[in-house]
Order: sequence, then C-alpha cells, then structure tokens
Amino acid sequence: MTLYVHKYGGTSVGNVERIRHVADNVIKARRRDESVVVVVSAMSGETNRLVALAKEAQPTPDPREMDVLLSTGEQVTIALLSMVLQERGCPACSYTGGQVSIVTDAAHTKARILDIDTQRIRADLEAGKVVVVAGFQGISEAGDITTLGRGGSDTTAVALAAALKADECLIYTDVDGVYTTDPRVEPKARRLDRITFEEMLEMSSLGSKVLQIRAVEFAGKYNVPLRVLSSFQEGAGTLISYEDENMEKPLISGIAFNRDEAKLTVLGVPDLPGVASRILGPVAEANVEVDMIVQNVAEDGTTNFTFTVNRGEYQKSLSILRSTCAALGAREVLGDDAIVKVSIVGVGMRSHAGIAAKMFETLAREGINILMISTSEIKISVVLKEKYLELAVRSLHEAFHLDRPNVSN
Amino acid sequence: MTLYVHKYGGTSVGNVERIRHVADNVIKARRRDESVVVVVSAMSGETNRLVALAKEAQPTPDPREMDVLLSTGEQVTIALLSMVLQERGCPACSYTGGQVSIVTDAAHTKARILDIDTQRIRADLEAGKVVVVAGFQGISEAGDITTLGRGGSDTTAVALAAALKADECLIYTDVDGVYTTDPRVEPKARRLDRITFEEMLEMSSLGSKVLQIRAVEFAGKYNVPLRVLSSFQEGAGTLISYEDENMEKPLISGIAFNRDEAKLTVLGVPDLPGVASRILGPVAEANVEVDMIVQNVAEDGTTNFTFTVNRGEYQKSLSILRSTCAALGAREVLGDDAIVKVSIVGVGMRSHAGIAAKMFETLAREGINILMISTSEIKISVVLKEKYLELAVRSLHEAFHLDRPNVSN
Repeated sequence: MTLYVHKYGGTSVGNVERIRHVADNVIKARRRDESVVVVVSAMSGETNRLVALAKEAQPTPDPREMDVLLSTGEQVTIALLSMVLQERGCPACSYTGGQVSIVTDAAHTKARILDIDTQRIRADLEAGKVVVVAGFQGISEAGDITTLGRGGSDTTAVALAAALKADECLIYTDVDGVYTTDPRVEPKARRLDRITFEEMLEMSSLGSKVLQIRAVEFAGKYNVPLRVLSSFQEGAGTLISYEDENMEKPLISGIAFNRDEAKLTVLGVPDLPGVASRILGPVAEANVEVDMIVQNVAEDGTTNFTFTVNRGEYQKSLSILRSTCAALGAREVLGDDAIVKVSIVGVGMRSHAGIAAKMFETLAREGINILMISTSEIKISVVLKEKYLELAVRSLHEAFHLDRPNVSN
Repeated sequence: MTLYVHKYGGTSVGNVERIRHVADNVIKARRRDESVVVVVSAMSGETNRLVALAKEAQPTPDPREMDVLLSTGEQVTIALLSMVLQERGCPACSYTGGQVSIVTDAAHTKARILDIDTQRIRADLEAGKVVVVAGFQGISEAGDITTLGRGGSDTTAVALAAALKADECLIYTDVDGVYTTDPRVEPKARRLDRITFEEMLEMSSLGSKVLQIRAVEFAGKYNVPLRVLSSFQEGAGTLISYEDENMEKPLISGIAFNRDEAKLTVLGVPDLPGVASRILGPVAEANVEVDMIVQNVAEDGTTNFTFTVNRGEYQKSLSILRSTCAALGAREVLGDDAIVKVSIVGVGMRSHAGIAAKMFETLAREGINILMISTSEIKISVVLKEKYLELAVRSLHEAFHLDRPNVSN
C-alpha cells in the first residue's frame, strides 16, 4: 500500500468550508487505496491573532510561552479536520506534535526536529485511519512545547514522510506548482513538472516563496520526493526530487528574482588582510544578513568592497558602514536601494559552458547594465537597477526558451 | 511558607487588560510571601467560539477531537498570563494539563481526575516561580487530551490544592462571595463569611451558580478550604470549609431557588409495585434529569405521582409520559411549566426542630400555596407558582433574619 504525507497550509484550512475541501481531497486519495497522514497549519489569520495577543501581553514575548501560545493554532485545525473526516465516514485521529513525539531541541520558536516516534501513527494507519498531525510544533526532551518557526509545517510534513518512509510528501498550497519564473512578471512562465532539490533550494532562497528552504533541505537529505500542488485545483504539480539520469535535462530550470535588495559599496579601502571582516563584522553584529559580496582590486593599492542586504536594513547598514569607513581610512561609502537581483538556476549548467555568456549577452542586447555578478555551481545572479527587473526576467525567459517544455534551452 | 492555589474564570481573563489585573493580584500575594499556583480558564467567549467551529465541522462532534479543540482555550490563557507576569518581573512558567500529568479517565468531555504528578510544580515553586496551569483539562493514560466538562477549571484548582496540600484554594470569580440569596431578588441579601461544604452543595445544586458542584464535592472530600472571592474588587469573600465547632451557627445559611422548573403529574396510577420505575424509566432513557419526586396514595387504590424536570425538557417529558400513562392504565397526565422551587439551606436545622413549620407558616401568612414539598437533612424545598418567587424569597429571608450577621435566626 502506498503511503502519502499531505501538507495543507493556512489558506487551505482557512475556514471549515475549506477544511471540508481538504477532507474531500484526503478521501479521494483513500479511494485510490492510499494511506494518508495529513499535516496541517493553523487557520490563516490565527497565528497573527495569537502573535498580536502575545505582544499585548509582553512586548518581547518569552519564547517558551510563545510556543505554548502559538501551538494552539494547529491544534484547533487538527481537531476540526478530524471531525470533518469522521462526519464523512472516514475514520481519523488527531495528534499534537507532543503526542506523536516529534522531539526537538529546546530552541523555542525555531526548534529543530531530533526524532519522531512513529509507533502511534503506524498503528492508526494499520487500523485504517487517516492520521492528522499538527504541523510546526514539537516537544523538547524536557517536555516543553516547541515550535519550528514560521513555515515549519512543511518541515513537519517532510520529517514525517522521512520517518514513515512515505512514497511522496505532497505540499498542497495556493499555487499549482513551481514555475519557471513568477507569472505575474512573465505571463509565459510555465509550471515545471520536475525540478531537483538543489534547483529548488536556489529558487526558493532567491525569492520564489513556494516552499520553506529548511523543508527542501530536509527532503533532500532524507531523499523524500516532494510534490508541490494546488489545494484548490486539480493537477500533478511539480515534483522535487534528485536528478533522474534518464530525464531530458534543460540547462536552465527557472529564473528567480528578489526585489527587496539594497547595495552598499565602500570605495578606496586600504587593501590589507582582514579588511572584509572589519567591514562586515559590525554589520553582522547588528543582525543584518548580508547576501552577495563582491570585492575588486582598484589600481591605487586600495580596494572597492560591495555587498547587498535586505532593503529594510539599508539605512541601518549605511550608518554602520559610515562609522566603519572612517575607522578604516576608506575613501567613501556609496549606497543604492533601488536595485534588484535576478538569477538563472539550473543543474544543467554544471556540464555546459556558455550559459553565463548567453545571460550577459541577452541583458546587453536589451541595454541592461549589470551592477554586480555572483555565481554558484547551479546559478548565476546579477544585480540590476530596479527598473530593469521585468525586462530582464522576460528576455532571459525567452532566451532560454523556458516557455516551452522539454527543450534543452 | 504558605501555598495558595488561585483560580480565575473566563471573565477574569477575558482580555489582556484583565489578565494584567490577575497578574497584579498574583504579585500582591507574592509580596505577602505566599507561594502561588494559578489555574485559569479560557478567555470568555473563546470556548463558545470553538464549540461553534466544531459544530460547523461535525453536528455531533467526536468527543476525543472536541477535547483536542477545546483544550486550546486554556492553553492560550496560560501563555498570556505567564508573559504578563514575566513582563512585570515575576518569574512564571505555564503548563498544560498534560504537562503536569493531570491524569484522568478516558471519558472525553467529562473526564474525572485520577492522579496528579506534582513534581514539576514543586520544583518550580521551590525555584521561586509562579506556576500557571491550564484548568479544565487533563490527559488520559493512553496519552489523549481530555477535558473535565464546563466549569472544570474549579475542579482542577481544587485537585491541585489537594495534591499540593495547599493552605487554601481561592476561586476568583465575578461575584464577591456566596450570598444568603440572590441579591437581584432580595436586595438585603448578605455575603456569608463562612459556609460549610454541605450547605454549599445544596446552595449550588439549587441554583446559586457560584461554584461547580463537583469542585465543592472534591474540596469536601479532600478537606481543601475553598474561598470564593471577586477578581474585580477587594474583600475576604466566603470561606467554604467544614463546620467549626466553635462557630456560632445560624440555623439557616441561605435561600436558594430555581426558576427553570416544570412539574408533571400522573393521576390515578394503579398502586402496584414497580409503578415508579415504569413511569420514570422512559423519562430517564430520554436523558431527562428528574429533580424532585413525590408520590401520594389516593383513596381509590390508585396513586398520584408527581416529579419536576428542567423547564427545557417539559414538552419532551410530557409526550413521553402520555404514552407511558396509556400503557399503565393511569387516569390522566397533568403538567405545569410555570412553577419554581425555593429552598432554605442550613446545617443548623439538623439539630433544631420547627424550621419547616416556620417556613410553611411564613409562606401561608403571605397567601402562598405550596404545590410540592421535599426535604433533606439540611434543606427544605418547596415548589410554588412562578409568580410567588420573589415574595417567597423575601419573606423567608426576613423571617430567618438572614440580613443580620451572627444571628441564630
């Protein structure tokens, strides 16, 4: 018998009517003789309501108590879904994270799963029940309630699929799969039938927010085939798995982009060892996450140092940098918060030269100036002026023939 | 060091502002060098919201899943109260029923407490923390979440007080104590400083809904002094304990009444053994709770049989009775749903004759006809026409001098 773990997010369980729709979907799967474990999030809006209550109680809420509070959100959903399933004649049983021993470390509000005891779940599955598990939550070894952080329900689903050796982990969401790029920017964007874990990681970390990075990492680590699909419409979605040797591999799978970027440059830094850490150290200490980093040697024995941060942290970073700059004897600090990052992603580029050249050529043909470049094994990212975002995405989408399936670009 | 268990109901924790008020009260107790365990209910309105969701999911919700759902209400409150306490610099830690092993039987939605493991609570108290425990909930031996039924938070508080051998269990509510009768009916009603467990049981079962009967029974059984007091105003409230031999005992402590009664009579029942059970059996099978029962022998070898039920079950009981009546060969079924029950309660009446006579005399003087009489060791109940309720309560209150403290009636 095949075993599937389904995961439904907050929008898919936003009210009882939608929960009924989820139940329909689960019952359909059972008619296909599939065993089903369902992981659900809190009803949409519920987590925000609880966070607001917490902040009213304590401006910086105690993390342990925050977890006690937030974990109630999913607990409500598991009970309601089990009731709806039973109402439709489908035997079902709900469990909190603690009840199925999703043991985590004690890092409240961002705990990591250490172990899952699947005994109760297996017994229920064998008894013909649908097992409904609260996502996002676990229990520490000391018996305290923990949560995995926002989006943690994806991680719960993948961890359960791994522990149960499920055939697939189905992530039901409000989009019908992973696209070659954001359809709001390029209407010709195409749903991908398959994508590899590595590509998905690059796509999601670059701004295509379909799946939580940690869940994808987890799925990759335990080789759990992951499928992203819509809970509102029929369709096979996108399967995320390891590279299939028999598969016709396109060079490029998709184009990711991030609008929320800002760029900071220190000009005329004396080119001495330790300069990078002296520049970035104070930024990191202020809890600002740095994304791309580029350093170029200038001609007068000094160097120019550029990095990008989230746009929300631009002003903070700029003022930190200005004081560092004075201490370092650097010439000037420049900043630009009207930039974006555009990346092409594909495992195919590992074995093919010329991808970068084609990307730069395409942008040049459109008169788009590249401000920064950064590359990894399976992606090439460029920083551009904000106004070029749509043009860049569309021309790259066309240049790499992403609108046509099964074309080797 | 003295140890108190505080219990705050739904109105007292209805929003974060009120929870702050609860925290103030707890902190005041700590300044008096008292150790405090706090038991809280769900925020007012929350249980009703969850019940409505459940009924939308499943018209008759599965009891196990209902408990998973409802237990989230108190879990929200314990987290918020702990946060507010911490915000005020008072170390606090929250626990669900499961986390402090409030082990119950498996009777979902009306479970009974079997055992409490106080180890974690004691350790926290010794570390100087306020321990905040979710009321109303427990965990079955199989590890399923259970609830104790509505009002179960009182029971949790008393059970914890018993297990911890607390000095007193303080039930904070929206009234400032137990009154000689309902002040809305008799403005001269007076707050009692003390009342015995037995009297409190008679008072609450007769309609003075201050405390849950089960909690009072529990407190009596384990001899936990119980104090009912207001969470909104200062005051010593009413202490419920065993009879104090040195105490000046009034004969009557209070007057309870119940407006929601209806009365049913079967006339001319053949007076044979087993008649009572043949009349009441079908009523009980329909889950109707019968209150007072009176049977009188008539002159013609038949008997008249009268009992009272909750007014909401009057029509149902009447139609059951009509079919029973035919089968029994009884003459007629009569009913009246415009009646009330008024009772005088007091341990003093055990040792004093003439109380009943005084009661009947008082009512007669006012021209009030008594429809039914029923007595127990410490109470006398009469059924009256509804229109006489206020007059009866006020004249009895005056006749037994209940407006004056420490008078032997």
